[in-house]
Amino acid sequence: MSLLVVGSVAFDGIETPHGKHDRLLGGAASYFALAACHFAPVRLVGIVGDDFTAQDVAVFKHQQIDLQGLERATGKTFYWAGRYNQNMNERTTLITDLNVFANFKPTLPPAYTDSAFIFLGNIDPTLQHSVLKQVTGKTKVVGLDTMNYWIERTPAELKETLKHIQVLVINDDETRQLTGQHNLTRAAKEIFKMGPKTLVIKRGEHGAIMMHEKFLFSVPAFPLEEVHDPTGAGDSFAGGFMGYLAGAGKVNERTLRNAMVYGSVLGSFAVEKFGVQRLTTLRRSEIHARARLFSKLTSFKL
Amino acid sequence: MSLLVVGSVAFDGIETPHGKHDRLLGGAASYFALAACHFAPVRLVGIVGDDFTAQDVAVFKHQQIDLQGLERATGKTFYWAGRYNQNMNERTTLITDLNVFANFKPTLPPAYTDSAFIFLGNIDPTLQHSVLKQVTGKTKVVGLDTMNYWIERTPAELKETLKHIQVLVINDDETRQLTGQHNLTRAAKEIFKMGPKTLVIKRGEHGAIMMHEKFLFSVPAFPLEEVHDPTGAGDSFAGGFMGYLAGAGKVNERTLRNAMVYGSVLGSFAVEKFGVQRLTTLRRSEIHARARLFSKLTSFKL
Repeated sequence: MSLLVVGSVAFDGIETPHGKHDRLLGGAASYFALAACHFAPVRLVGIVGDDFTAQDVAVFKHQQIDLQGLERATGKTFYWAGRYNQNMNERTTLITDLNVFANFKPTLPPAYTDSAFIFLGNIDPTLQHSVLKQVTGKTKVVGLDTMNYWIERTPAELKETLKHIQVLVINDDETRQLTGQHNLTRAAKEIFKMGPKTLVIKRGEHGAIMMHEKFLFSVPAFPLEEVHDPTGAGDSFAGGFMGYLAGAGKVNERTLRNAMVYGSVLGSFAVEKFGVQRLTTLRRSEIHARARLFSKLTSFKL
Repeated sequence: MSLLVVGSVAFDGIETPHGKHDRLLGGAASYFALAACHFAPVRLVGIVGDDFTAQDVAVFKHQQIDLQGLERATGKTFYWAGRYNQNMNERTTLITDLNVFANFKPTLPPAYTDSAFIFLGNIDPTLQHSVLKQVTGKTKVVGLDTMNYWIERTPAELKETLKHIQVLVINDDETRQLTGQHNLTRAAKEIFKMGPKTLVIKRGEHGAIMMHEKFLFSVPAFPLEEVHDPTGAGDSFAGGFMGYLAGAGKVNERTLRNAMVYGSVLGSFAVEKFGVQRLTTLRRSEIHARARLFSKLTSFKL
């Protein structure tokens, strides 16, 4: 089934101990879409400037990602630059130029309004909500990402939007900030009261945990010898997660558990090269082979 | 098969957001022994002062822990006091009085020299090595714990001792410090060159990972709603881990994976109450029930 993603498309300047690259295609929706497209047809709603070239478009087109919803505006595309420290466990943002993204008002093309699987990337909660209002069909799963900025500045709007979503995909700091609970098990119970009955907590090198009203599921990060660029790992996780669900077409305990694994698989591939590069060369056989490695990594027989 | 543990027996003063308790029975070897005793007969080598009462002895005796190797010296028992912060992810050491532990020279009673499973708790590497020299029988597994203090001050002695052990059980910071490698996969390869072919990395609330020359295995921490006292979690993990192996009597991929699970099970119980309290009331049925919960927490079917 089709998967709609709404969020940022950007150019990134990234420096890690493995190198320095500028004007890399990036942004949360790009990573998400290029991870999810390996499982299901993806529709992208975002905004870019007139510096976004045919070559940039081709990266998505090559993966059959639907760009009807990618608005082109006069001006420059969102630009972000950051530098990672030696161990890549910390990063410093050097530049954030919102450019055309500052005026992003997501509009769904008519063909998108029947999307059954939807992911609302990290943008203003009011805009996230506006996307849902444009959907006319019956949705199966709406997922949402957010960040400290919105938790602090627009808590009421965020809480209103949360009432309409099923899966919240955030990191542990955001979980704690949103609920005021340090203990994640108790934090999950607060989230359930807000609307989502499934909380996916991304923990970077420590993997991810799913807290569902009826079960818990934990998946480790894949132990890699070389991480070249951590940018987009969480968005690729979300893309693999939602993509798997949309591809399966149904949401139950088994598909949710597998979605967590495929999320981790895509996150682990994303960091192997700079930008979205690794996601664009990924073969289905590689994805499934790594999923089987996750099974070896975690299975035991009492 | 019998499991020998050598290490500290102490009295602890512990303050957490859940309360403040003084003169709690503690020390790494105590937590280890009281966790391991649920799986195999445990022999303890340690030292206590004349303030160690019959009641303290009874805690071990009640669990059939062999105290022939527990030396009594004139003076006071090792005393440690610490305070945890609100979220219990940081602690401040308030007092460390080594007392009789400063002169600990571990001596194996003749009945202990045939121990097939041995765990060398975090003490001077030269003393750890001296224990192995007293063993006359053939060992199956020797495990070892250490800390930053020994890695910094006695690196040569530590590396000599590491040549004689099979399983190194340390945390992620110690792994990085010992190898000079931030990446844990690459750090493991350095450890393998030092002697141990199995590295168990304890990661607190993030679980534990086993890096074996032939396989990797990851286990999460058990998501608890209430942590009352994190003291001894790592030692209880090591006790559950080594205890399970000694109980199984054989070391192969399956028993090593299960040992990781039972290590996490015991670590998770240890923190539910202050000091060793929870370990002393633990029933076998509770242990196995929680191990099955770990299976539910991590299993998926692709």
